[in-house]
Amino acid sequence: MGDMGLGIASLLVKYSYPVITDLNGRSPNTVARAEAAGVKDVSFLDLLSEASIVLSVLPPGHALSLAERTASLIGIASRDRKDKLVFIDLNAISPSLARNISLVIENSGVTFIDGSILAYPSKQLDDGTWFRPSIPISGPDFPSSPFTSELTSLLNMHHISPSIGAASGLKMCFSAINKGLTAISIQAYSTAHNLGVLEELGDYMEKYFPALHRVIDGAIVASQKKAYRWVNEMEEIESCFVEEGGWDKGIFGGAAEVFRFVREIQPKGEVKAVVQEVSGALRRRRKSC
Amino acid sequence: MGDMGLGIASLLVKYSYPVITDLNGRSPNTVARAEAAGVKDVSFLDLLSEASIVLSVLPPGHALSLAERTASLIGIASRDRKDKLVFIDLNAISPSLARNISLVIENSGVTFIDGSILAYPSKQLDDGTWFRPSIPISGPDFPSSPFTSELTSLLNMHHISPSIGAASGLKMCFSAINKGLTAISIQAYSTAHNLGVLEELGDYMEKYFPALHRVIDGAIVASQKKAYRWVNEMEEIESCFVEEGGWDKGIFGGAAEVFRFVREIQPKGEVKAVVQEVSGALRRRRKSC
Repeated sequence: MGDMGLGIASLLVKYSYPVITDLNGRSPNTVARAEAAGVKDVSFLDLLSEASIVLSVLPPGHALSLAERTASLIGIASRDRKDKLVFIDLNAISPSLARNISLVIENSGVTFIDGSILAYPSKQLDDGTWFRPSIPISGPDFPSSPFTSELTSLLNMHHISPSIGAASGLKMCFSAINKGLTAISIQAYSTAHNLGVLEELGDYMEKYFPALHRVIDGAIVASQKKAYRWVNEMEEIESCFVEEGGWDKGIFGGAAEVFRFVREIQPKGEVKAVVQEVSGALRRRRKSC
Repeated sequence: MGDMGLGIASLLVKYSYPVITDLNGRSPNTVARAEAAGVKDVSFLDLLSEASIVLSVLPPGHALSLAERTASLIGIASRDRKDKLVFIDLNAISPSLARNISLVIENSGVTFIDGSILAYPSKQLDDGTWFRPSIPISGPDFPSSPFTSELTSLLNMHHISPSIGAASGLKMCFSAINKGLTAISIQAYSTAHNLGVLEELGDYMEKYFPALHRVIDGAIVASQKKAYRWVNEMEEIESCFVEEGGWDKGIFGGAAEVFRFVREIQPKGEVKAVVQEVSGALRRRRKSC
């Protein structure tokens, strides 16, 4: 389980909802964190037998295969429930991929809901309350069972549209802005570093765009750990803007390249250290051409 | 003269510096605005004969041709000054183009200074003081004459580097962030509009990124009037990030496409109206394919 899945699981466990997952093949660190959060480790077939709701929260490149695995195994899962299993895709994927996944899931007799997660992982704050990301969902049917109003409220879930793809598309548009800005800023800051004017760029940003300046610093630091996941997310955004918006390809293919580069060099540290490592790797790459 | 040139001219005239320009072929509106600001209209040859400093402030695609015209005509200009003419390129151009222009200008015997303009046009505020953009400049020689300390201070001019290209490059990096964010936001907002979730996108942006949200609204409105100039500026940024940063092409070629599209449909109004017009034009374009 990644940070996002673990955050939701911790919140649900804290409010006495049983949470199960399949940790087969995951790192000892992930297993330990899940256990500490009170999440029960079961086989995927047992998960499909016991669960009321499957929340799919993965790096976007794995979204389809989880749905296919669910569809292929649900027939042999020993389910004794009256209600059908509900599968909610919460991944950062394009509307077209969400629609493809909905066909796979619905054809297997499972109920599909399109969803996405906006903002940061759930986390208990110092005052005891919980920060919770928003979970917009969309689709023609939103079953009242097993969703009590307590559960939907706890998860900060809002039904925004009858169209499958709307919730995924909203995530693409929301995510494009912050992460696209991050990719641009990594290019701008590293180029300024090569030109010897990084400090001046920071000064002028602070003078004329102080709000942007602070958002960017945080985003560049965050990109170190998340670039591996953002590569594929940028590709999904590109698909979304082409297929749903009617735009040409370009910006987000370029953003994917930026995060691919950051992922490969794995910089570490504060903004200046990250920018220096990226600039240095770009110079080495150029020399080796 | 555009807004930026006229702003600088108005400031200089207000402080009793004589400002001349060649308005041949410009629109009646531009001529009227320049005259109202106290700028004297002369032929380009007279301008080269009389001026101490040429400030080149143009859409970036015209920067090289003004330099070439200056170089080709300076020999026949009747200059009676001891000091050489100083040519400052203040355009939004890549460092490599600034270096090309410096060769053209220096070869003609004129002194070249690389510069750029950050932030908005100069403007007298209600309290009588002036908002002035920053003018970073770079190059090995910064002549003290005709630059008195009063003049450099009035123009908010700072020498940041001995390298020609540093000031232009700083502008590229600075401008990339705000205008790149604008291009991304135009794609995201219009795609959200097509998906029927534009209002939700605004709500979630306000909730999680309020500072960004306000910057974006202002930037989208501003793009209506400036897209014609930004197309070429995005292409210069792409060159800069490839040549000076070592990045692959992609993001800013895509941003140029966005502003090319906005320039062609010339939307008018507040954010929602702009987004609606852009979305509608994208749908029509797709249908006509």
